[in-house]
Amino acid sequence: MQVAVIGLGLIGGSIGIAARERLGARVIGWDPDGAAVAAARERQAIDAAAGDVAAAVSEADLVFAAAPVGVLAGVVRDALAAAPADCAVTDVGSTKRAVIVNDPRFCGGHPLAGAETAGVRHARGDLFEGAVWYLTPTARTSGVILERLHRTVAAFGARPLSIDASTHDRLMAGTSHLPHVLANVLVGQASAALAGHSLPPSGPSFRDATRVAGANSAIWTDIYLSNRDVLAERIEDAVSRLTSVAELLRSGDRAALTAWNEAAAADRRALLEAGLEGGPVHELRASVPNRPGVIAELALALGRAGVNIVDMALSPSADFRQGSVSLWVSGDEHAARAEELVGGLGFPVARA
Amino acid sequence: MQVAVIGLGLIGGSIGIAARERLGARVIGWDPDGAAVAAARERQAIDAAAGDVAAAVSEADLVFAAAPVGVLAGVVRDALAAAPADCAVTDVGSTKRAVIVNDPRFCGGHPLAGAETAGVRHARGDLFEGAVWYLTPTARTSGVILERLHRTVAAFGARPLSIDASTHDRLMAGTSHLPHVLANVLVGQASAALAGHSLPPSGPSFRDATRVAGANSAIWTDIYLSNRDVLAERIEDAVSRLTSVAELLRSGDRAALTAWNEAAAADRRALLEAGLEGGPVHELRASVPNRPGVIAELALALGRAGVNIVDMALSPSADFRQGSVSLWVSGDEHAARAEELVGGLGFPVARA
Repeated sequence: MQVAVIGLGLIGGSIGIAARERLGARVIGWDPDGAAVAAARERQAIDAAAGDVAAAVSEADLVFAAAPVGVLAGVVRDALAAAPADCAVTDVGSTKRAVIVNDPRFCGGHPLAGAETAGVRHARGDLFEGAVWYLTPTARTSGVILERLHRTVAAFGARPLSIDASTHDRLMAGTSHLPHVLANVLVGQASAALAGHSLPPSGPSFRDATRVAGANSAIWTDIYLSNRDVLAERIEDAVSRLTSVAELLRSGDRAALTAWNEAAAADRRALLEAGLEGGPVHELRASVPNRPGVIAELALALGRAGVNIVDMALSPSADFRQGSVSLWVSGDEHAARAEELVGGLGFPVARA
Repeated sequence: MQVAVIGLGLIGGSIGIAARERLGARVIGWDPDGAAVAAARERQAIDAAAGDVAAAVSEADLVFAAAPVGVLAGVVRDALAAAPADCAVTDVGSTKRAVIVNDPRFCGGHPLAGAETAGVRHARGDLFEGAVWYLTPTARTSGVILERLHRTVAAFGARPLSIDASTHDRLMAGTSHLPHVLANVLVGQASAALAGHSLPPSGPSFRDATRVAGANSAIWTDIYLSNRDVLAERIEDAVSRLTSVAELLRSGDRAALTAWNEAAAADRRALLEAGLEGGPVHELRASVPNRPGVIAELALALGRAGVNIVDMALSPSADFRQGSVSLWVSGDEHAARAEELVGGLGFPVARA
């Protein structure tokens, strides 16, 4: 397998190392920055460097566009223009609506791993171990492409989870971009309040809540801008919730304050449980029509329900009109839910 | 030395263990909950249990009121009513204006240590190691009392820092109570947004920002209520900052967004540096008039400037009209600053 990595930062470099170590892939890299290319060679993240995007992808089976969000759409377009007809092209950007391409070879992606400040010198093959890796197939995404990407990402040790681009961006606005905004607001406020005091704000809750304050602008301005409509909505929702809390405090209503705090405790427990999984892995085999979008449809339905597909394999029938897909799902409950969901989509399904 | 601990939870129990282990103190404990008393005995946090607050404090040199914030003022009053004339009485509550008592024997306190969910079974003698321990002396607080408390807290391994109660509560509103409110708001929003999706919110920034969501209501409702005016202000300040960010996002102003993020990065760096200290420890010796409030005045001036007093010792002169106080301050710069500040208050001061 040949893998092209466009953009050799921490994520691109780690993909290169993981692909070489775990898949025995030949990795071709490209980056506009010669120093990054040299560092990637040194880290053994790439087998060879290409002169441009087209040269990097021309013989690739799988292309990872790992450039900054601001230039990602262009990089993906360039890669698709030069990539072979059966090549899978994905990206690793933090927002996904900005890079929707109606090409069966394309499927968006976003690994939840890596600190944004680190470069390729910090790349490592196990960076994605245990991390959620969102995949955002469109209705046009080919099943073969999605399967290849899914297996590759799983081989990196990540947990691939298919969701549509809009859901992804809404989810990230609330769970990543908003926490960054709140961290910035907290340090801004503390800094103003402490002016002239030089008091160290030493509490652990403050440290936790502000760890990501002022994250690398070269990356985060693009992330904020590429998701600005949804993020602004999330901020306005937070503003309305905060305004209610301030009113509650001013009223001094003990019972309502306790109820509000207890609701938060229940929400937190539910969110933690939603992230849990485990138990034995079950194989489900479904028969699916060999038409574009069917695998994406399936993966999205399971992703939406929080069912983690541990692994996936396609076996097209001889006449290519009918196919079968094997899905490995962990946990009895998730397996039962997956069986129900796949059946609900009209596909015959059984435990293998 | 005899130490009384009123309220045998994680903090009270840890104070008991630290006082026994590090000061060889005899520790008398009291708690309305018999099970907590039994557990405190088992953890060797107390030498003996008393039948009520008055009995616990009647022969104490130092009383720690470690009851929940809601009943703390009453416990402190009861302790002062029964404690000897030269006994130091302090509390460990998370807000300090709620427990201001105009008694020379009293000085408020607040160690930034310990998870609120844990009980006395998790008590340990090194809980306060390296933690900031705020002291909030009033103008009435006796110098001898403040010195005893300061040395005791330092012997526990904590970093005593004197600030006035209002500054403390404003500081905590911004750096502890507001992060808790934001955590609650974040999980509430995520929970509403994810309803029907069951998607795990897996990002590290979300995990960090929501770790304290829905913290123990039995403790936190009281904390919120006892600081509600200042906290409401801090929330409203955050609301106004968030509203500006939402406007910035909707306008799509890249330069302004970057400037906002860079300002947060600078604020975070400055806040981190304010918490740093180190270097050689210097002893400063100051001559001070032997009148009430002078040591508190001194400690507050240094605390306000972020100067950490590593240790403190009072030596009253024979006629008790003039005294000398030794202050140990770490770091060349802090020592110079302390010398300047003490001199500025009109007290002769020199490096010892």
